[in-house]
Amino acid sequence: MIVTVTPNPALDITYRVERLVPGTSHRVEDVTERAGGKGVNVARTLRCLGYAVLATGPVGGPAAAAFVADLAAVGIDTAFVPSPEPTRRSVAIVAGSQATLFNEAGHEVPESVWADLEAVVSSRCGRGDVVVVSGSMPTGAPVDLVARLTRAAGTAGAMMVLDVRGEPLARSLPLRPAVVAPNAEEAHETTGLANPVSAGRALVAAGAGCAVISRGAAGLVAVPPAGPALCARLPKPLAGNPTGAGDALKAAVAARLDGLPTVPDDPVWWSDTLRAAVAWSGAVVLQPVAGVADPTDVARLAGEVVIGPCP
Amino acid sequence: MIVTVTPNPALDITYRVERLVPGTSHRVEDVTERAGGKGVNVARTLRCLGYAVLATGPVGGPAAAAFVADLAAVGIDTAFVPSPEPTRRSVAIVAGSQATLFNEAGHEVPESVWADLEAVVSSRCGRGDVVVVSGSMPTGAPVDLVARLTRAAGTAGAMMVLDVRGEPLARSLPLRPAVVAPNAEEAHETTGLANPVSAGRALVAAGAGCAVISRGAAGLVAVPPAGPALCARLPKPLAGNPTGAGDALKAAVAARLDGLPTVPDDPVWWSDTLRAAVAWSGAVVLQPVAGVADPTDVARLAGEVVIGPCP
Repeated sequence: MIVTVTPNPALDITYRVERLVPGTSHRVEDVTERAGGKGVNVARTLRCLGYAVLATGPVGGPAAAAFVADLAAVGIDTAFVPSPEPTRRSVAIVAGSQATLFNEAGHEVPESVWADLEAVVSSRCGRGDVVVVSGSMPTGAPVDLVARLTRAAGTAGAMMVLDVRGEPLARSLPLRPAVVAPNAEEAHETTGLANPVSAGRALVAAGAGCAVISRGAAGLVAVPPAGPALCARLPKPLAGNPTGAGDALKAAVAARLDGLPTVPDDPVWWSDTLRAAVAWSGAVVLQPVAGVADPTDVARLAGEVVIGPCP
Repeated sequence: MIVTVTPNPALDITYRVERLVPGTSHRVEDVTERAGGKGVNVARTLRCLGYAVLATGPVGGPAAAAFVADLAAVGIDTAFVPSPEPTRRSVAIVAGSQATLFNEAGHEVPESVWADLEAVVSSRCGRGDVVVVSGSMPTGAPVDLVARLTRAAGTAGAMMVLDVRGEPLARSLPLRPAVVAPNAEEAHETTGLANPVSAGRALVAAGAGCAVISRGAAGLVAVPPAGPALCARLPKPLAGNPTGAGDALKAAVAARLDGLPTVPDDPVWWSDTLRAAVAWSGAVVLQPVAGVADPTDVARLAGEVVIGPCP
């Protein structure tokens, strides 16, 4: 089973307007609202492509029940931890192809909530399971939160996939997460190395089982447990909505790892995994809504992925 | 007693950001959230300046309880009617002195909710009370809703102050509301007359007891039941936040009418009322938050108001 942890979930509100004119008033007829956050997007993509997934994280406030119901409605199992602080909002103003985002930072959550979250990981995970921790930390979250979750997953025998940045990532590396999957900017920020291959090697040297670094439309770079660094990409960038494309990449890696005892070092397994990661990512770009992917797009794009040792 | 009716209340969410850059992502640390809508602002100003007030309108969805609690916390009595539809939001992005607003249109509310709202007006109002109906109508609201509320107030012996526009205002005029108080643009839209004095006379001819038309920083125009049209303004415009200034004007008129059997035609009463209306309005401009007014500002500004027959 795959468990996605979203430490800082958000209620994603989308307003579609004809034009955004700063300093004026806009009447908004087209409003959509859904449970969001990076870990939630990972769960959505997994579910969309037929995988069983359990989503967790802290939720609270008046929107908590609707947040959880929104995920349950699409068949995602949920084990969210009640928080006394309201779940933050993220407002996207979409005008044509332009999106302007306002992400609330999130409230400080009491320590007991983080202890409950750790307990969910400990109690719901076992050998062969995969835990994915994704996204930002709310204001005031303990800097070792992700390390604690990594330890809990490891103790339970599950593999950890991390999509977090900065200090929370750095503190988790000694606990040997199976996969770290920051984007190129985050990897640079964490390691100080601008070249993604060098940054990936540094992350592996610091304790990660392997590193998969996304570079947006330029594809991804992987530093596997053995063999050379691999680069994978589509022959040409796709037009569409890139929101959630990075999350789909982590979803694909988690899906490939699910049920395995450890991260394989077989180059063929890696090649297939990176092919899936790029294809899942691309399929999400082709959809207007984050987290959604069409299996026929995945199948078609998988045939187009270009993979090889990084130049 | 004064009753404020807000047919289309909104949860007002304010995001303060350094700069609004369309097409980019903004992390928002400064979030405020409060019960809003024009009638709610009228109630806030009345309460702020020491008047007892009952606020009503439809509320629903996860935020309903917090919406009502927010008003109760400042001493406003509430008799909101439960709606199966969630209360809309209004998001203001404030960057320095620039505000960019996104107002959700609001959901269609079932007829039973409007019947309940009419019943609140009928049961809570009596002779000498004042009812203020303010603001937009939600999508799909019956076009005669305001007329029905005006009839209910009239039957109960209460005076009606209307701050609504277009067809809902036009349909209410035959029911002889005590005061209609649109802004100049709304009066123009309803009567087809660009000159506010002419528009005010047309509204009175169509059934209103009197018309008080706001012209923003240029002050107001009143067409009282007897005597010449009066113009009132501050000697120079105030710098500040004009949100809620128009609502404060209606609040002042309602406060002056409260407890009277009918709208007086005494020119001295009118002069005092317009002086109060301009001063309340100005005091709200001086505050950063809509609906709030400092009584010392009101007292000082009242001494500065220039009133006389319109040129």
